[in-house]
Amino acid sequence: MSFSVTILGSSSAKPTPQRHPSAQVVNIHEQHFLVDAGEGTQQQMIRAGINPLKLRAVFVSHLHGDHVYGLFPLISTLGLYGRRTPLKVFAPAPFGEMLDAHLRFFDKELPYAVEWCEVATTQHALLLENRTLEVWSIPLRHRVPCAGFLFREKQPPLNVDKFRIEKYGLSIAQITAAKRGEDIVLDTGETIPNGELTYRPYRARSYAYLSDTNFSAKAAELVRGVDLLYHEATYAAGEHALARDRGHSTSADAAKAALQAEAGRLVIGHYSARYKDENVLVEEARALFPESYPAIEGSTFTIEKKQ
Amino acid sequence: MSFSVTILGSSSAKPTPQRHPSAQVVNIHEQHFLVDAGEGTQQQMIRAGINPLKLRAVFVSHLHGDHVYGLFPLISTLGLYGRRTPLKVFAPAPFGEMLDAHLRFFDKELPYAVEWCEVATTQHALLLENRTLEVWSIPLRHRVPCAGFLFREKQPPLNVDKFRIEKYGLSIAQITAAKRGEDIVLDTGETIPNGELTYRPYRARSYAYLSDTNFSAKAAELVRGVDLLYHEATYAAGEHALARDRGHSTSADAAKAALQAEAGRLVIGHYSARYKDENVLVEEARALFPESYPAIEGSTFTIEKKQ
Repeated sequence: MSFSVTILGSSSAKPTPQRHPSAQVVNIHEQHFLVDAGEGTQQQMIRAGINPLKLRAVFVSHLHGDHVYGLFPLISTLGLYGRRTPLKVFAPAPFGEMLDAHLRFFDKELPYAVEWCEVATTQHALLLENRTLEVWSIPLRHRVPCAGFLFREKQPPLNVDKFRIEKYGLSIAQITAAKRGEDIVLDTGETIPNGELTYRPYRARSYAYLSDTNFSAKAAELVRGVDLLYHEATYAAGEHALARDRGHSTSADAAKAALQAEAGRLVIGHYSARYKDENVLVEEARALFPESYPAIEGSTFTIEKKQ
Repeated sequence: MSFSVTILGSSSAKPTPQRHPSAQVVNIHEQHFLVDAGEGTQQQMIRAGINPLKLRAVFVSHLHGDHVYGLFPLISTLGLYGRRTPLKVFAPAPFGEMLDAHLRFFDKELPYAVEWCEVATTQHALLLENRTLEVWSIPLRHRVPCAGFLFREKQPPLNVDKFRIEKYGLSIAQITAAKRGEDIVLDTGETIPNGELTYRPYRARSYAYLSDTNFSAKAAELVRGVDLLYHEATYAAGEHALARDRGHSTSADAAKAALQAEAGRLVIGHYSARYKDENVLVEEARALFPESYPAIEGSTFTIEKKQ
């Protein structure tokens, strides 16, 4: 029942010798999702020990090259690996046109389908849902249409307290009903409220990815209570005007978003190449929000189960 | 008066944790040319200490992704760096269409022009010429239209032997004429043949890049006498049938090409991901052509001046 985020890239658009542009893999119960795909994503994935064939879907926040150039080579490689399962790519328009051009030029005989699912970047919408999780779009404020993503684990099934099973002599049918959340009527006619019989083994976990963006109170509101928040921090706190003009955030903006969202932990990234040492930015964020951590290539943030 | 080749990538299409796909920088008298541009080229260039703004032109052998995916991000980055000088890209068709799509999707406001120069892959043609060098196309045998490139330094200007200048009491005008290759008529009426007065400071150097290709006797012939030959060696010698079917070469094919071309040194690369240790391939090549060396990311092959 894993829930973790592995950082593949932490830089903004200008390349540096060590950092890679934006890309992450979110692993929820061994369902792997790629979030953004800067150049070099496939190699970074392999270096992090993640098999690219495991990807269930891809989420692209916006169509600046440093968030998507790595997706096309990855699409080709999955073909070389013989993928057959369709791959959904959630991305803003006109990603479909880019994909068509890519397939026409480079992957005419791809052995699997790439299915584009348009993300309306002005809406907070449910993009993907299955038994385990939901993924929601979070409208962001960048120079081009851009959406963040909120990954929410669904509530785990109720467990029935084994001492109560013994105490009330519950039948299999009654246990199954209790797991569904029902109250139980005993043979004596007594009704036992579900809350007395059952408990959640852990509470549902969540992760939000907010990049690229100016500080957005609305986005912070939409991810309220998130366990782990990734927020871009392209610039240091002193560069507020520059960040604002370029549709980016400072370390202080990221911390402010974490505070407002009442996040459990904050991860910052998308560092400008001017910052050789990201700790400058991390320390600024920590001054406002102590649970701040740097995105570093290859590092994994695990969200542990909590009651 | 440098002449060197720096390897940025040595792998074939499937990614590996350590190797990068094909890319090299040829430096001739501080004119830098990029030859192929697999994913990650710009980062590899920075890691190798080569400023991407220095690039004079780009040569793309063929339009498989592992030879060109890195060019588009590089084009964007040169824009971020504020390049103004037009950049020529020599590549087979339909590179122009790919470039148009790229510019439309990602680089609408690029501050410099990218000029596509079509390479006719069936012709041995002069692609670029300036005072220092020539670049020629070499038709190759791959699954898609593909050309190698031959970089030829021009003959350096003649030097006039200072002892002869003294001996014959040559005037400035006579020295200049001798440098142009003319015979000199002394005041005495005696004619001194140019060959007695002048010498080449060093002989013109050359480098050939042959990838991707089946063994081609014709290509080897076209690069006869080359100082340094890069030849792909995707597979080991025992995989001859596989190599042939896939439009690739074995280590033995590469050595055979070097022998036939009477090359000075051979560099092999474009290794299949199946070979964790490229020395297997290098040893096979050396058994036939002792001056064989592996392409390794970051390594530079320098062609020294020789008389």
